[in-house]
This record gives sequence, structure tokens and C-alpha cells, in this order.
Amino acid sequence: MSQIHNELKKEFQLERLILFSDAVFAIAITLLVIEIKIPELERDAVSDTALLHALGNLIPKFVGFIISFLLIGLYWAVHHRMFGFVTSYDGRLRFLNLMFLFFIALMPFSTGFYSEYAGSELLFKRQLKVPMTFYVLNICCVGIVNYLMWRYITNPKHKLTEPPIDPVMAGYAKARAIMVPTIFLSMLPVAYFIDVKYAVYMPMLIPIVMRISKRAINKKHKAVRKSIPAA
Amino acid sequence: MSQIHNELKKEFQLERLILFSDAVFAIAITLLVIEIKIPELERDAVSDTALLHALGNLIPKFVGFIISFLLIGLYWAVHHRMFGFVTSYDGRLRFLNLMFLFFIALMPFSTGFYSEYAGSELLFKRQLKVPMTFYVLNICCVGIVNYLMWRYITNPKHKLTEPPIDPVMAGYAKARAIMVPTIFLSMLPVAYFIDVKYAVYMPMLIPIVMRISKRAINKKHKAVRKSIPAA
Amino acid sequence: MSQIHNELKKEFQLERLILFSDAVFAIAITLLVIEIKIPELERDAVSDTALLHALGNLIPKFVGFIISFLLIGLYWAVHHRMFGFVTSYDGRLRFLNLMFLFFIALMPFSTGFYSEYAGSELLFKRQLKVPMTFYVLNICCVGIVNYLMWRYITNPKHKLTEPPIDPVMAGYAKARAIMVPTIFLSMLPVAYFIDVKYAVYMPMLIPIVMRISKRAINKKHKAVRKSIPAA
Amino acid sequence: MSQIHNELKKEFQLERLILFSDAVFAIAITLLVIEIKIPELERDAVSDTALLHALGNLIPKFVGFIISFLLIGLYWAVHHRMFGFVTSYDGRLRFLNLMFLFFIALMPFSTGFYSEYAGSELLFKRQLKVPMTFYVLNICCVGIVNYLMWRYITNPKHKLTEPPIDPVMAGYAKARAIMVPTIFLSMLPVAYFIDVKYAVYMPMLIPIVMRISKRAINKKHKAVRKSIPAA
Repeated sequence: MSQIHNELKKEFQLERLILFSDAVFAIAITLLVIEIKIPELERDAVSDTALLHALGNLIPKFVGFIISFLLIGLYWAVHHRMFGFVTSYDGRLRFLNLMFLFFIALMPFSTGFYSEYAGSELLFKRQLKVPMTFYVLNICCVGIVNYLMWRYITNPKHKLTEPPIDPVMAGYAKARAIMVPTIFLSMLPVAYFIDVKYAVYMPMLIPIVMRISKRAINKKHKAVRKSIPAA
Repeated sequence: MSQIHNELKKEFQLERLILFSDAVFAIAITLLVIEIKIPELERDAVSDTALLHALGNLIPKFVGFIISFLLIGLYWAVHHRMFGFVTSYDGRLRFLNLMFLFFIALMPFSTGFYSEYAGSELLFKRQLKVPMTFYVLNICCVGIVNYLMWRYITNPKHKLTEPPIDPVMAGYAKARAIMVPTIFLSMLPVAYFIDVKYAVYMPMLIPIVMRISKRAINKKHKAVRKSIPAA
Repeated sequence: MSQIHNELKKEFQLERLILFSDAVFAIAITLLVIEIKIPELERDAVSDTALLHALGNLIPKFVGFIISFLLIGLYWAVHHRMFGFVTSYDGRLRFLNLMFLFFIALMPFSTGFYSEYAGSELLFKRQLKVPMTFYVLNICCVGIVNYLMWRYITNPKHKLTEPPIDPVMAGYAKARAIMVPTIFLSMLPVAYFIDVKYAVYMPMLIPIVMRISKRAINKKHKAVRKSIPAA
Repeated sequence: MSQIHNELKKEFQLERLILFSDAVFAIAITLLVIEIKIPELERDAVSDTALLHALGNLIPKFVGFIISFLLIGLYWAVHHRMFGFVTSYDGRLRFLNLMFLFFIALMPFSTGFYSEYAGSELLFKRQLKVPMTFYVLNICCVGIVNYLMWRYITNPKHKLTEPPIDPVMAGYAKARAIMVPTIFLSMLPVAYFIDVKYAVYMPMLIPIVMRISKRAINKKHKAVRKSIPAA
């Protein structure tokens, strides 16, 4: 009885770590919208045209909100899948997880900062690079910590997964963890050396690149699977 | 042992998806109140009459808060009932769920925007349609994604429910999912072609329409049940 | 298997209702602090004396924060104990619960509003009654819905608890649910007919009244228990 | 069946207490970032240099955010470990837990207040001590309540852990609970009698002190273990 209890207790402790992370994800994803301030017009100036214009000015904010919402949602799904393998944890994994949550919690700020100054004309006319750089670096940090977590978890020495994760699959997970931050990082040379305008639209490539790479991975995976006699 | 563990693990993964959604619902519903700013009066002007007047000006905000609170509560209940059937999930359901949460998370903004300009005289005098349109479209998006989720889940091909949902019941669920956004959508022609004043009060019809339709559904349901020999 | 699954599923659905409520409680209790704005001084005026003075002005805010924190914590504990009995739920309980959460979610606003104008001199000099009335009414609504929930749950007809709650205990629970709002409500005649000053300090009586009533209840409980032959 | 149900129910009640605490931790840790306001520049003044300068001014805010994030994360981990032992709870533990959450919920405010005025030159030039004192006292309160919780839980009289916690381990837990607030408290004499400048950097010593003390504890622990014949 006591052993089963301890087993359950240990499992509950892991669940607590996971649910705490979920709560931080949920709060960060919902706080994103707080950075979109309701347009306040002078009482005399209020009209449908003025309101529509005010909403129009918010478009960069909305775009930023959507992209960051999808990104946090994506990283939540990755976290979800990652901890689907984890059956045990230690202090270092807890610390890496806290780092991960730190950069997730920073997303509403960096999204707000980027989209505050991504109001088309200003951004392009003055070629502002600081807000974009800040935003990109935040996403890169999320990606890097995510990569470190995958590396730590898939290392069979740490005995955090039961059974150990298939090394081929582990390799793919790590490769994928690097992909999103790489795309975002490649925005910076484009912004600094070519034009901020082109850099802004690069995140739209993510779904395409992900689809292509997914297909490539699946193909390679099948080939690898075939070459193993009977796994 | 390992199989039971995996079974439990899979179930926990589904629970995580659900509890993450719950957290987003809970945050969105509680953030609604944040848009109601505390009236700040000049130190010399503070008096009970002035405060009462300031509270009076907040009435549209409170009404908006109440309606959106009930709406998010309603959609939480629908989500709750929907996932009462779900026993498995895939990437597409996770994506649809994320879309659903996106429009839920947008509710505090659109509620705030609508109720900011729904201060009776201005709204009616100048026949403002933009804030209402934004709010209505947000609710419609919630409703449409909700419909898509029901359609996806109740499709026996996807094997997301065990046992598969009764097709008659699935039909009703989908019909109901369309109902609320339809009522809100019907506010727009009234506002654009008749008068904003009448449109504003239309959501009050929802409880009545829901009660009537519930009764109609129950009647039909009994009739259908009777016509099936022994289900 | 399928029946156990359904049993577990049903239990999980109840848990979801509870955990959703917990999240709303947790958010409302943490949002309270958001209403305490960080004092912003002119750059030249910044000094330890000025900052201390600014903090001093925030004391009513802190007091409000503490009282509301304790109140939400108290009502969370009540909710916690209440749902410790509940083994099943229906649409009406879900609706009552939503009402309960509505008034809990309103607490940060009404606390902020009350404590904004409870800055000692103004409140007492001008005998402001509106903010206090608003705050008291909010707490009363929480208390009344709480009472309705106890009444609904402890009614054996609704079969929401397994086994049914002891009627003596149910009576006490309902009596206790009415107590806190009654104390707060009694602030109003004091404020309106005597002096706002005395009303402000009345909530301090709550712990005392609760301790006394607890002792009285325990005494009565023992007496009742003795009079029942062998329960 | 009914007994198992009650056992499960009791365990779920404890889980609810824990998950409610987790939610408060998660919200407090994520709200920290809300105090970092996005720099708003005049439209004409916007340039990369100006934005970089504005970000530079936010550095104290970021440092405060990081320190408080780590502190709340640390205390969450402590809470996590503490309730890993707890198998039962009573009203007093619930109250201590609420106190603990109160001071955690206050962290975003005191972090914001401290880092608002920790903008290097002002803090050092005018030797501001009030914001630091407020921040340090908040952390001390967290530490003291944490200590009280450890003392309450590890007291075998209260029967809150099953099996009772090893008294040697209990002593270490309590010692550790006192350590962090002691380091922060020692900032105050340095700030008041020497120089605010030196006090500001003292929290950086925490990881070092914690590592040293951990090693010392481990050594002592082994020695104690050896002296006990066969535990």
C-alpha cells in the first residue's frame, strides 16, 4: 500500500510540475491580448470612421497577437509532447523547465514591444531594428531552452523516460526544436543588411517550412525503419 | 503494467489539453473585469453624488461584463460537455481547440471595445456600428470554431470518442453550436438597416430562444427515439 | 471496463468544474494586487521621505487587499469544503457555481473602488457611502449565492451528495453562509445613520464573531448528537 | 467502495489545495512581467538609438523581474517538495498556506516598486532605502511563513505526513527555509549603515551560499547517517 502510495505521490509530483507549467502557458497566452489597448477617442471625435481608423492602427498589434498566440500554442504542444515521454524528473529538469517558462512569460512584453513599433510606415521608413531584434532573441531563447530540455530528457543516462526514447526520434525532436528559432534568427541579417520590410514577413514561411520538413522527416523515418530488420 | 501506464499516460495527456483550456477560459473570464476601470475623480469633486454618477457611466461596461461572462461560461460548459465524449485526440483537434481558445482570449478586448462605446447616448445618437460589429464577429468566430469542433469530433472516422456519438445527438449538438452566433449575427442587419438601439437588446432573446429550442429538441428527440424499435 | 471508464469520466467532469472554479478563485485573489498601483513620483521629488509618504497613502489599498484576500481565501475554503461532499452535479449547480464565480471575479474591482476612496480623511470628512455600499453589496451577493448553493446541494431530492448530508450539518453550513454577508450588511445602517468611521472597522469583528459562533455551534452540535440514541 | 471513494475524495481535496496554490504561484510569476511597461516614445523621437536607450532604462526592471522570477520559482519548488510529504491537512495548514500565497501574490507589486526606483543613479545618488526595505520585508515574510509551514508539518503531533518526516531532515528543511530571507535581510544593515550600492548586489550571493550550504548539509547528513547503526 505504502509503496503504491509513494508511486502515486511521485507521479502526482510530476503532474504538479506539468500543471504548473500549463498554468504559466495559459496565463502568458491570455495576457498577450492585454497589450492591445482599447482605442480611446475624444468624445466629440467618436464616429464609425474614426473607430474603424483606430482599429486599423491596431492591425500590427493583432498580427503580433496572432503570431505569438500560435507560437506559445506551438511550444505548449511541444511541451505537452515532451512530457508525454517523461516519467521522472530531477532538479536540473525543473530548472530548465523554469527557464523555459521564463522566456514564455516574457513573450507578452516582447510581442507588445515589437508590435507597438511595427506600425507599418514608421518601422519601414526608419528601418527600426531594435524591437524586432528583441522579439527574435526572445523566441530564440525559448527555442534554445527547448532544445536543451530535449537533449537532457532524451539522454538515457538521466533515466527520465521509461522506456528510453528511440535515438532516431530523439534526433528529430532536437532538430525540430532548433528549426523555429533558426527561421526567426534569419530575420535579423535580412533586416540589418537588406530591408526590414522583407524580414517582417518571414515568419509566414514557418508553416510551409514545417510542412516540408515534416514530410522529409517522415520519408527518412520510413527509410530508417526499413533498414532495421525488425524493431 | 507498462500498457496500463501508457493508457494512463495517454489519458493524462488528454486531461492536460482539457485543463490547459480550462485555465485559458478561467483567465479570460476573470480578465473581463479588468477592462472596467475604477472611476478616478478629482480630489475636490469627490462626493457620493459624483461617485454614483461615475458608477452610472459604467453601467454599459457592467452589462458587457455580465453578457460576456455568461457567454464564456456558456462556452466553457459546451467545451466541458464536448470533451465529456472525447476519449482520444489528434493534432487537428488540438489546433481547432487552440483556435477556439484564441477567440475566447479575444473576448475581454472586444467586450471592452464594445462596451466602451455603448454608453447609451453616443451609441444611439451617432448610430455607431463598428464596436458592435467587432464584438458580434468575435462571438461568431467562437461559434463557428465550436461548430467545426463538434463536426470533427462527432465524425466516426476520426475515432475520437469511444463509443461513437449517437448521430441524432451529434446533429443537435451541431445545430445548437450554430444557434448563439446566429442570434448575435442577426444583430448586424438590424443595426445597419433599422436602428442600433434595437440591435443592442437582442442578446436578451438568447435565454428565451434557447429554452424554446431545447423544448423543441426534446420533443423531436422523443419522437425519434420512439420510431427506433429498441436502441 | 466501459462502465468504470464512464464512472471515471463522470468523476473527471466534476473535477473539471472544481478545478475551473479554483482557477477563477486563484486569478481573482492574485489580481487584487494589480489594483495597487506603484507610486510614481516626479524624478526630482524622489526621496525616502516622499516614497514613505506615498506608501502611507497606499495603506487603505493594502488594508482592502488584505481583507479581500482573506475573504476570497475564506470563500475558496468554503467552496472546497462544499464540493468535498458533492459527488454529482447538474446544470443548475453549474449555473449557481458560475454566479458564485461571477461575484468572486468582481471582487478586485469593488475592492479597488472601495479602497480608492477609503483614504481616511476624504472618506470620513465627506462621509462617502457609495464605495462602501458597492463593496458590501458585492460581498452580500457572494454570500447569498453561497447560501443558495448550500441549500441546493444539501437538498436530498437533487441527489448531488453520496451519502446525503446530515440535515443538522446542512443547517449549520447554511447558517454560516449567511453570517459573513450579514456582518458586512450591518455596516450599511451604521454608515448611513451613525458614522462611516465606525462602519469601516466593523469587518474586524468577523474573526471574533466566527470564533464565538463556532464554539456555540460545537456546543449545540454535541447536545444534538447526545440526544440521538446511536447515530 | 464507499471507503475507497472517501479516501480518494480526501486525497482529491488535498490535491485541490495544492493545485489552487500552484495557480496562484503561476499567476504571480507571470504577472511579474506586467510591471514592465512597454516604452512609449513620441512619434517623432522614435529611432533605434532612442529605443535602445529606452530599453536600457528598463534594465533594473528586467533584473528585478529575473530575481523575483527565480525566487517565486524557488519557493514553488520548496512548496512542491514540502507537499510531497504531506498526506493530510487541517484548517491551520490551510491558513498558513493562504498566508504564504498572500506574500507570493504581493511579490509583483514589491518587485515593481523596488525596480521602479532602482534605476542606478537615483538609487545610489539619493541612497534610497524605502523600496529596498519594502522588497526585503516581503521576501522575509515569505521565508518566515515558509519556516512556520515546515515547523507545523514536520511536527509529528499534527499527523500531516505519513510516514512522519525524519527529524534530521526536518531540521535541515527548516534551516534552509530561514537562509534565503536571512541573506535578503542582511541587505538592510549594509544599505542603512554602509552604502545602498553594495546592498543591491548581495542577492547574487544566494546561489553561492546555497551551493556551499548544500555541500555542508550533505557532509553532515552522511556523518549523522553513519552514526545511526541501521536506519
